[in-house]
Amino acid sequence: MDKSLNQKRRRRAIIAFEMIRLDRTAAEPIHHQLYRQIRDELASGSFNHNSSRLPSTRALAAELGIARLTVKLAFEKLHAEGYLRARSGSGTFVADSLPETFLSPDKATAKPQKERPARLSERVKNIPDKRVGKQFDVGIAGSPGVSFVPALAAIDEFPIEVWERLRAQVLASKGAHLLQYASSHGDADLRKAIAAYLCDFRGARCHPDQIIITAGTQQALMISALTLVNRGEVAWIEDPGFHQARRAFGFAGATVVPRPIDREGIVIARSSQQASPKIVFVTPSHQFPLGMTMSLARRTALIEFARTRDAFLFEDDHSSEFRFTGPPLPCLQGLDNSGRVIYAGTLSKILYPSLRLGYLLAPKQLVDSMIKVRAVMDQHSSAIDQATLARFVSEGFFLSHVKRMRKLYADRREFFIQQFNLLLGDRFVLQVPEAGLHFVAWLRKPAELPLITRAAVEIGIRPTPLSFFCMKAELKPALTFGFAAWSHAQIREGLLKLAAKLK
Amino acid sequence: MDKSLNQKRRRRAIIAFEMIRLDRTAAEPIHHQLYRQIRDELASGSFNHNSSRLPSTRALAAELGIARLTVKLAFEKLHAEGYLRARSGSGTFVADSLPETFLSPDKATAKPQKERPARLSERVKNIPDKRVGKQFDVGIAGSPGVSFVPALAAIDEFPIEVWERLRAQVLASKGAHLLQYASSHGDADLRKAIAAYLCDFRGARCHPDQIIITAGTQQALMISALTLVNRGEVAWIEDPGFHQARRAFGFAGATVVPRPIDREGIVIARSSQQASPKIVFVTPSHQFPLGMTMSLARRTALIEFARTRDAFLFEDDHSSEFRFTGPPLPCLQGLDNSGRVIYAGTLSKILYPSLRLGYLLAPKQLVDSMIKVRAVMDQHSSAIDQATLARFVSEGFFLSHVKRMRKLYADRREFFIQQFNLLLGDRFVLQVPEAGLHFVAWLRKPAELPLITRAAVEIGIRPTPLSFFCMKAELKPALTFGFAAWSHAQIREGLLKLAAKLK
Repeated sequence: MDKSLNQKRRRRAIIAFEMIRLDRTAAEPIHHQLYRQIRDELASGSFNHNSSRLPSTRALAAELGIARLTVKLAFEKLHAEGYLRARSGSGTFVADSLPETFLSPDKATAKPQKERPARLSERVKNIPDKRVGKQFDVGIAGSPGVSFVPALAAIDEFPIEVWERLRAQVLASKGAHLLQYASSHGDADLRKAIAAYLCDFRGARCHPDQIIITAGTQQALMISALTLVNRGEVAWIEDPGFHQARRAFGFAGATVVPRPIDREGIVIARSSQQASPKIVFVTPSHQFPLGMTMSLARRTALIEFARTRDAFLFEDDHSSEFRFTGPPLPCLQGLDNSGRVIYAGTLSKILYPSLRLGYLLAPKQLVDSMIKVRAVMDQHSSAIDQATLARFVSEGFFLSHVKRMRKLYADRREFFIQQFNLLLGDRFVLQVPEAGLHFVAWLRKPAELPLITRAAVEIGIRPTPLSFFCMKAELKPALTFGFAAWSHAQIREGLLKLAAKLK
Repeated sequence: MDKSLNQKRRRRAIIAFEMIRLDRTAAEPIHHQLYRQIRDELASGSFNHNSSRLPSTRALAAELGIARLTVKLAFEKLHAEGYLRARSGSGTFVADSLPETFLSPDKATAKPQKERPARLSERVKNIPDKRVGKQFDVGIAGSPGVSFVPALAAIDEFPIEVWERLRAQVLASKGAHLLQYASSHGDADLRKAIAAYLCDFRGARCHPDQIIITAGTQQALMISALTLVNRGEVAWIEDPGFHQARRAFGFAGATVVPRPIDREGIVIARSSQQASPKIVFVTPSHQFPLGMTMSLARRTALIEFARTRDAFLFEDDHSSEFRFTGPPLPCLQGLDNSGRVIYAGTLSKILYPSLRLGYLLAPKQLVDSMIKVRAVMDQHSSAIDQATLARFVSEGFFLSHVKRMRKLYADRREFFIQQFNLLLGDRFVLQVPEAGLHFVAWLRKPAELPLITRAAVEIGIRPTPLSFFCMKAELKPALTFGFAAWSHAQIREGLLKLAAKLK
């Protein structure tokens, strides 16, 4: 500020030409290098912004020996961020007030923090670790090619262009309203569409008010556990069973008790000495991971058990859409007259997992508390996604997608069975369930498990050992193979590779 | 199945023409009535699907006396959902297998459940109620016109078309990868962009690995509380303060202790007799709701307090982007050398609230535990939204939006101050803070509070009473007015209405 006009003029020239160092070998594009260096110079604050005019893009390009378009790109970015302003006819100037004050000029020199070890909460220490390392972590998402990881579906078949078109439609029709805070209960149209779907196709009994939109099944588990379970109260889970239920209930403070599975489903305690469970996690339509369907007799007995013991049943109806043989049974919720079943479903797993939308169908008396829990946890789910999904379901795209995928999966399933028995039938007995997107393959020679697992990992094939899903259950060694996400060629390639490796 | 071919033919005719009852006065469109009635008839299951051909659209339209297009619409929907199939040249047939078996034909008669009262968890009972009814609930989002509700921002100014364009770009460039399960840590590009923003503009010290993407500030609070606080451990909150922090900490089992506020910010306990807090919630850049900026001396003292008492500070930097006067101070996190500050920021509130994206900048030693908690709670946030946001930030749209909104808000703020003092200056003393999107207006005559509140509600104006944000603090009566979401005309209209009502 105390500089003379002359010095200021010289200073401008310095910014423009001399301070800039462009490195043509760097990964950072030239226009971004230029943008960054000008920005940093402006932000250093040693400027009289008001009167600083930048050289023309033409002059600067000539001086630096780069294309004029490159300079323009940098200027546009600086302009968009508010560092520059254009005065029509008289060139580009530094903005009157910079967009932000840079508060940490020496950020590059910030020292590593010296941190004293944190005292974490007990519940964090109680989250069971995932046993098979990064099996369900990011890794799987990115890994291309066939891996037979059970959790994966054929997301490349999702009609994302239809989805985006519906999204544009709901944005056009509902406008800014969709951008505002929304209900913790969930989008009313979506709740209506889901209630209709569950009544029509799953034999559920419900009113749209009983539907609560969640950020997926994991959150549905957390909401249920946090609403019902006090620290130390008992939660039953199926053993073997869905490991994420164990994690959620444990995190909520429950004493998690594994219950064995027989041919009809979860075994109900005979002794009345045992502490009654507050909540019981079950997968009646397709036991995860073993695949049996819970018998009608067991369903009735379970509901009666819940009624007399004042327990709630958490019904995870995860694979009901992908049933390939045998008649469907109505969901547990539809058999229940006493409001003991919390039904959880997912739409995002059928559409695409990163959407993070699911729902609870709750007994009426739990609805308000669950909405309150959702509000405290994270308020609500994306309103645009919810509105888009409502339209996707109510206009029939959901059903037609399910139908198309069921055909595709039935075909891949047949092919997998045939190829697997052909190529690996000497080592495994493949168990074929009526529903779901994975198989359990039992080892003919139990002792071979470590050998086979190691061989699979070495060639990038990652079926999950059945033991991963067990707490106390001692089952014969088996691997679970997903088949849904891969083409015939990929399935054959993966199985061939594994068979060759095992030779 | 036991019917003769002739009967089957007659039956087809019955479906097509006689069973259909179209009600032209109903709200349901004719094509949907037609679709629904055919679907229900097919789904009733009394069919030999294989051989059933439907009449042509032309014949059906003529018979029913409706447009052929209407029939076509109904058929297309049935076709999309898998009830019909076309054989080229030979007409439309009932599909070989219906898309789903209808499991609950008597769903209309489902009886209301008899439910025994549920034993809810203690923590649910401990969620403090929102004192002012539905102040922050759905209602506000939908209510058109001026309400002066403090939480609202000018979302109609958000460049949703830019956002949608970037979304299309990330979908095009990343494809199906974005639909797959994603990281609980958060999108790597987004974490990088946020880390750069915080270093550049908030004086934070951080590495992208320390950023954890959350579903907003509410979830950031829950993750922090659940990671650190055991049942009965102490959490300090500012009093008056952000009511959602109280709810989140209480829900996590903390004993919530309100701490008073003086001119410099939260008052630190003098007595070492008191139980040390495990976590302290503060709003240093703009105390919510009173609006003062925490002094540098208090910031330093607070960090030292946390270090010696082994506490963590939760810094909610909610309004730092909307500061209108006075120099910004670097965030608390940037002053901290001992890893005691958990910094929480929101992007979605600045962009649009229903996006539900925010972030934590965590001390290194908490990062892994917090990611684990996020994974158990709900896995991760929408991958497409995260990737879109990453691009929105890194390409400069975020900064230019903030800059534009700051100008708009500064203008609305000036106008509000001027009009408020003109029209309501006889009843209130308006307190003008340096930042934020609301004002505290102190009543000149304390006794008038019930009168004024009632009058405001009657005309649809809903400033929040300051007492709503108080736990133990006894402050003079005041109302908090939001100003950001409304145009000059609306602001003037609202204030005029209130002034007239109070005359």
